[in-house]
Amino acid sequence: MTKSKRIVAECLGTAMLLAVVVGSGIMAENLSGGNVAIALLANALATGAGLIALILMFAPLSGAHFNPIVTLSEAWQKNLPSNEVLPYIAVQILGAFLGVAAAHAMFDLSVFNPSLHIRTGIHQWWSEFVASFGLIAVIISCSRSRPQVTPFAVAAYIVAAYWFTSSTSFANPAVTLARAATDTFAGIRPIDAPGFIVAQLAGAACATLLFTWLYPKADQTTTTD
Amino acid sequence: MTKSKRIVAECLGTAMLLAVVVGSGIMAENLSGGNVAIALLANALATGAGLIALILMFAPLSGAHFNPIVTLSEAWQKNLPSNEVLPYIAVQILGAFLGVAAAHAMFDLSVFNPSLHIRTGIHQWWSEFVASFGLIAVIISCSRSRPQVTPFAVAAYIVAAYWFTSSTSFANPAVTLARAATDTFAGIRPIDAPGFIVAQLAGAACATLLFTWLYPKADQTTTTD
Amino acid sequence: MTKSKRIVAECLGTAMLLAVVVGSGIMAENLSGGNVAIALLANALATGAGLIALILMFAPLSGAHFNPIVTLSEAWQKNLPSNEVLPYIAVQILGAFLGVAAAHAMFDLSVFNPSLHIRTGIHQWWSEFVASFGLIAVIISCSRSRPQVTPFAVAAYIVAAYWFTSSTSFANPAVTLARAATDTFAGIRPIDAPGFIVAQLAGAACATLLFTWLYPKADQTTTTD
Amino acid sequence: MTKSKRIVAECLGTAMLLAVVVGSGIMAENLSGGNVAIALLANALATGAGLIALILMFAPLSGAHFNPIVTLSEAWQKNLPSNEVLPYIAVQILGAFLGVAAAHAMFDLSVFNPSLHIRTGIHQWWSEFVASFGLIAVIISCSRSRPQVTPFAVAAYIVAAYWFTSSTSFANPAVTLARAATDTFAGIRPIDAPGFIVAQLAGAACATLLFTWLYPKADQTTTTD
Repeated sequence: MTKSKRIVAECLGTAMLLAVVVGSGIMAENLSGGNVAIALLANALATGAGLIALILMFAPLSGAHFNPIVTLSEAWQKNLPSNEVLPYIAVQILGAFLGVAAAHAMFDLSVFNPSLHIRTGIHQWWSEFVASFGLIAVIISCSRSRPQVTPFAVAAYIVAAYWFTSSTSFANPAVTLARAATDTFAGIRPIDAPGFIVAQLAGAACATLLFTWLYPKADQTTTTD
Repeated sequence: MTKSKRIVAECLGTAMLLAVVVGSGIMAENLSGGNVAIALLANALATGAGLIALILMFAPLSGAHFNPIVTLSEAWQKNLPSNEVLPYIAVQILGAFLGVAAAHAMFDLSVFNPSLHIRTGIHQWWSEFVASFGLIAVIISCSRSRPQVTPFAVAAYIVAAYWFTSSTSFANPAVTLARAATDTFAGIRPIDAPGFIVAQLAGAACATLLFTWLYPKADQTTTTD
Repeated sequence: MTKSKRIVAECLGTAMLLAVVVGSGIMAENLSGGNVAIALLANALATGAGLIALILMFAPLSGAHFNPIVTLSEAWQKNLPSNEVLPYIAVQILGAFLGVAAAHAMFDLSVFNPSLHIRTGIHQWWSEFVASFGLIAVIISCSRSRPQVTPFAVAAYIVAAYWFTSSTSFANPAVTLARAATDTFAGIRPIDAPGFIVAQLAGAACATLLFTWLYPKADQTTTTD
Repeated sequence: MTKSKRIVAECLGTAMLLAVVVGSGIMAENLSGGNVAIALLANALATGAGLIALILMFAPLSGAHFNPIVTLSEAWQKNLPSNEVLPYIAVQILGAFLGVAAAHAMFDLSVFNPSLHIRTGIHQWWSEFVASFGLIAVIISCSRSRPQVTPFAVAAYIVAAYWFTSSTSFANPAVTLARAATDTFAGIRPIDAPGFIVAQLAGAACATLLFTWLYPKADQTTTTD
């Protein structure tokens, strides 16, 4: 796959992911009449279903990272050339903001609006650490043993993580930055984003260390999908 | 597969799809006591589950399009003979109306009743553009890389799209026309149908252009399933 | 597989299916506080998930029919020796009642109690016809094209059918008889059972006729799984 | 796979399972405003989704038991060396408590707090017997016929079992012990744990006897995954 197609795929895939996450959050908030449990059920279901489709769509093109911590972990494992790390992360962030704007346009909101949703504190940072640790662990485990199930495993993991963490599992720095630009169900205050991102990087690093020991790299399982 | 079987499959499959979409919408409205979030959850779950079954059932026969924009996109890609486009679209529309009538009969409603549900405006048209773009993108991506996962990817995508678009993702001109004939949860005012259909065609065209560039056609992946 | 194991498998599998259907209905009714939409969501989710597990468990042993209309359709297609039809149906009915009793014991109810739940009328019979037609159609289509997906297709179909039919899709004479013996969420008045069963048989017959024409039998796809 | 990696995998996998079960229970209770049906829907969905991911992640390493009754049943079938039974069970229990502590830390609760949730009586013990019988039956059936579907079958079974049993299906002695240490949605009074564990062991023993008769061991299907 040529580099230009990989870059387009990461940008478009991340945009579609944010459109799913933010759009379904807005719809859920609009319809649920303040019942947050039902809103989160809908948001989790839509996100998980969307991830199945998006990872299946884009994995053969770019690996379907949509997430800087995935890109960094893959590069650490030598699955991605190091000179592609910055372009990947740049277009993931760009795509994430485009996705928020696309979702806002679908619901007649202004392009961006900074979130007022407070998400901070050691418990939420620990949640992001755990969520990101688990995400990278799922990806390394499945891609090294049965890569064809990875899209389903990742989507299932995220559905669970929306519910078992107190932060509802952002687990993605590009997503975190872009969700700071939406004052809706999925938002996070811009000032709270850095804490989340540090925790995400730490969780991803621990998972990469542990799971590359647990699953030594096999020659035949190094493809992106 | 003979042409007559393909035509029967498209008609019956589209009828069953509409029975699922409209029938589950009626049931959801009847049971949910005005809680629209729960109604849409049930409607999305039933539609996604139904799509898995229906695409698995009919894909080996007709490709399981059930949707004129899918048929047009497949013909554009030379996956369908051009002289089958009109018959496919004709029986999709016929099947869609039969499905609405079947659902109405299950719930003791008159055969058809024009919807009063307003669905219009640039935001909803943009939603239909996005929803249709994504649907065609999923189909081209999966059918050109791992066709056996296409039924699951399409169903998952539609579950997400019911929630992340403000239009609840019709993404199908035959479905749009038939849903104008039901004044229930899934309905759309007849006068609003053309706007939806134009947006759907535009989204499908853009996705076909972009994704046939991203995924060049491989000889071994041109089968309908 | 020996005949005795096949018979044990049909009996136990049908018992577990009824335990799932009736038990989850009781739990849903107990917890939902009169919100029938949430109760049916839970009942449908549990039934679909249970079916995935049960069909995967028992298909290699007995074909995992759990349902007289499936057994009759398979025998019609010469996939089951005709002298096994009556034993299969007998133990399906026996297993169904055992499953209801097992569910009642889990929730501290008497072994059996006749249902007072009225389910009758041409609209519900039409629903049962459609539901049973679709079930047999799914089974024939998948078992003749990609048998390994049948468990998922059947489960997905039933989840949808709980919602798109006004009868909540019994689609199974053994299940219908046994659900007449439970005065809980999943029940049906004994006097209403015959109407359902006639409709189920008619739907199954039509589907067998149509889908054996659509999918001619291939030599390599005649195994039960 | 070396023994040390298998032991780490069982410990970490069981910890993550408990974090999912207990964490999603806390979140569900916090958000659902007393609507227990919605809380259990969320808890079941998160647990099932989490199980798909966790079994896919850890099955190639340790078999992904996460459960002493699974370990005992596998050892009985000679799929696990007998000298690994105690280490497996020890780290499952250790992991389970670590997972509860991790979940409590995510929601700002004290490390452990004994549950006050009464779960006792013959009906709940029968529920645990049935739940455990079914779990071991699923595992033996799938691992001896189509091991690649086992993760999905087990997860689907547990989603159903949360709903069709009056005990919400613990079906796992390590999970039972650890859930006695959380006074949240998923908790169980410490004094009620032994009754559950006895019922779980009995159900597992019956299932192992019956299903090893139904499915004779084939040479080619003895791998853990």
